[in-house]
Amino acid sequence: MIIDIHGHYTTAPAGLAAYRRRQLEQVDSPTKGTIDVTDDEIKETIENGQLRQQRERGTDIALFSPRAGGMEHHVGNALVSRYWSETCNELIHRVCTLFPASFIGVCQLPQSPGVSPANCRDELERCVAQLGFVACNLNPDPSGGYWTDPPMTDRYWYPLYEKMVELDVPAMIHVSSSCNPNFHATGAHYLNGDLSVFMQCIVNPQLFKDFPTLRFVIPHGGGAVPYHWGRYRGIALEMGRPELTDFLMDNIYFDTCVYHQPGIETLFRSVPIDNIIFASEMIGAVRGKDPKTGRFFDDTKPYIDNIDFLSEVDRQKLFEDNARRVYPRVDRLLSGSATE
Amino acid sequence: MIIDIHGHYTTAPAGLAAYRRRQLEQVDSPTKGTIDVTDDEIKETIENGQLRQQRERGTDIALFSPRAGGMEHHVGNALVSRYWSETCNELIHRVCTLFPASFIGVCQLPQSPGVSPANCRDELERCVAQLGFVACNLNPDPSGGYWTDPPMTDRYWYPLYEKMVELDVPAMIHVSSSCNPNFHATGAHYLNGDLSVFMQCIVNPQLFKDFPTLRFVIPHGGGAVPYHWGRYRGIALEMGRPELTDFLMDNIYFDTCVYHQPGIETLFRSVPIDNIIFASEMIGAVRGKDPKTGRFFDDTKPYIDNIDFLSEVDRQKLFEDNARRVYPRVDRLLSGSATE
Repeated sequence: MIIDIHGHYTTAPAGLAAYRRRQLEQVDSPTKGTIDVTDDEIKETIENGQLRQQRERGTDIALFSPRAGGMEHHVGNALVSRYWSETCNELIHRVCTLFPASFIGVCQLPQSPGVSPANCRDELERCVAQLGFVACNLNPDPSGGYWTDPPMTDRYWYPLYEKMVELDVPAMIHVSSSCNPNFHATGAHYLNGDLSVFMQCIVNPQLFKDFPTLRFVIPHGGGAVPYHWGRYRGIALEMGRPELTDFLMDNIYFDTCVYHQPGIETLFRSVPIDNIIFASEMIGAVRGKDPKTGRFFDDTKPYIDNIDFLSEVDRQKLFEDNARRVYPRVDRLLSGSATE
Repeated sequence: MIIDIHGHYTTAPAGLAAYRRRQLEQVDSPTKGTIDVTDDEIKETIENGQLRQQRERGTDIALFSPRAGGMEHHVGNALVSRYWSETCNELIHRVCTLFPASFIGVCQLPQSPGVSPANCRDELERCVAQLGFVACNLNPDPSGGYWTDPPMTDRYWYPLYEKMVELDVPAMIHVSSSCNPNFHATGAHYLNGDLSVFMQCIVNPQLFKDFPTLRFVIPHGGGAVPYHWGRYRGIALEMGRPELTDFLMDNIYFDTCVYHQPGIETLFRSVPIDNIIFASEMIGAVRGKDPKTGRFFDDTKPYIDNIDFLSEVDRQKLFEDNARRVYPRVDRLLSGSATE
């Protein structure tokens, strides 16, 4: 079985954007309102989009969440963020209900700059307990490129972590769009978020002592982390930390969203196989085909197939077992014991 | 000949820190003041520091600049930044005068958040024309982690670029320390700066049309850029840009400050050899020895020596010819025609 842990509903029907426009028109007096999207519209976008590509690529199931760039936690206040997150998550739930064999839900959280992450507990609980979701996307920078909230190792975030641990769900660390003209979203802000949070976890190792079962999945192949694995090892050792593999690897995982052969090989040559989980972020940041190969840039499996130093055991971990381990609710869903 | 294009005076005598302390005590009424550092102190720090390691590693000459983390452009106003930059640059000049066969100067610029980079023209000209420097370090984020100035492709920066082009000196894109607790300096802010500016150049290709001979050296192996070369190619193509190699490679270069074997191989497997220039950033961000190899993490030459797909021609470019081409004043100095 091949599980892709990183997909967003980037092809949502136009009704979602219309909902968002109406929401922004009344941004100072928010109501939840309703969304005008039919099941047929959902089916059409999925069948001609993600599901078709899953079939073409041989992926069995994707962890599916609202569009990351659309989370826009900086827009409006916490109530706007709550209604928007609820609506986006409910749309994901409809996708997963219509295609239960192909998609499992991951939720957006109603974050807002300067507002305690405790504010996200209820929506996380609703998504997991009522909608069957298995994880959340957690934005380390709700300001959208100005980084005004505390580092993710700060106690500021602990109320949310308590709920994540209680529900046994990991978070994918994933920024949203960037309002800062210095940071292109997918070409800079995303990667900056990834590597900055990894470094925060080196700076303050107390976080995972306080929450030994807390799990972060760092997307986009870990930003620059595997490429600079020597740099991170060296900085950590100089700070008196143990080897990275001796104090972070029960809590931090990387996806495989790296879109060329040398890059993805560096990931596998640097990070332990138990900490890498297959993903593509299809349909996402890079949608075109590589004119040099004729394949989609984000079709990550052929790069991995080309790596000659991975064993069958490694591949089984990468494509399935690691996902089941890091996302225990995926394992339970696939084992048919989700209602236990 | 082996030229290392990235070294900072991280071991400066205590008199420099004392100067800085006095400067900060009168930060609201700045005067230039004087620095109390003897030639013997300089000799001692260099001979027991950078020069010893150069000899041990077989490096002939290093491009040498003030400590990057110490530039602190966010501290005080533009006049404080000017006095501090002048003082740091004059100290570098003394090093280069004492050890003319081993060090060539690269200057710090008197940047200040929100102050036009035109303000840096005089100090750049002084350093190049009077002190024999060959390049500058240019901070894309003088705010120190809040990214409040415009992207480096903005016309805001053009007055400085005009002077760089006139003097025919490249800039190493190098942030300084971080005031933002989200960004560890060497483990996050540095790499974020590198990759963010590379992406800015994809977003706005007009910059290098306006300045066809402007040259940026992106340090730390390009941040995440070579690791995500496929991602950047894909994003650029989707934006209607040509291949990266067809529109950026006359203007952007990467150093080799990547501190483990798989990472540095990715650099060489992704980026054209004409755009990679040897460097170590010794003595810099990562000062320890790798317990697994017994060698310094930042001793980058052995990693390169281990790469089996580089030809002798490639190595000649990497260790010497590319530096002479991208830094024409290095070539002139080494050819003994610097006074022309």
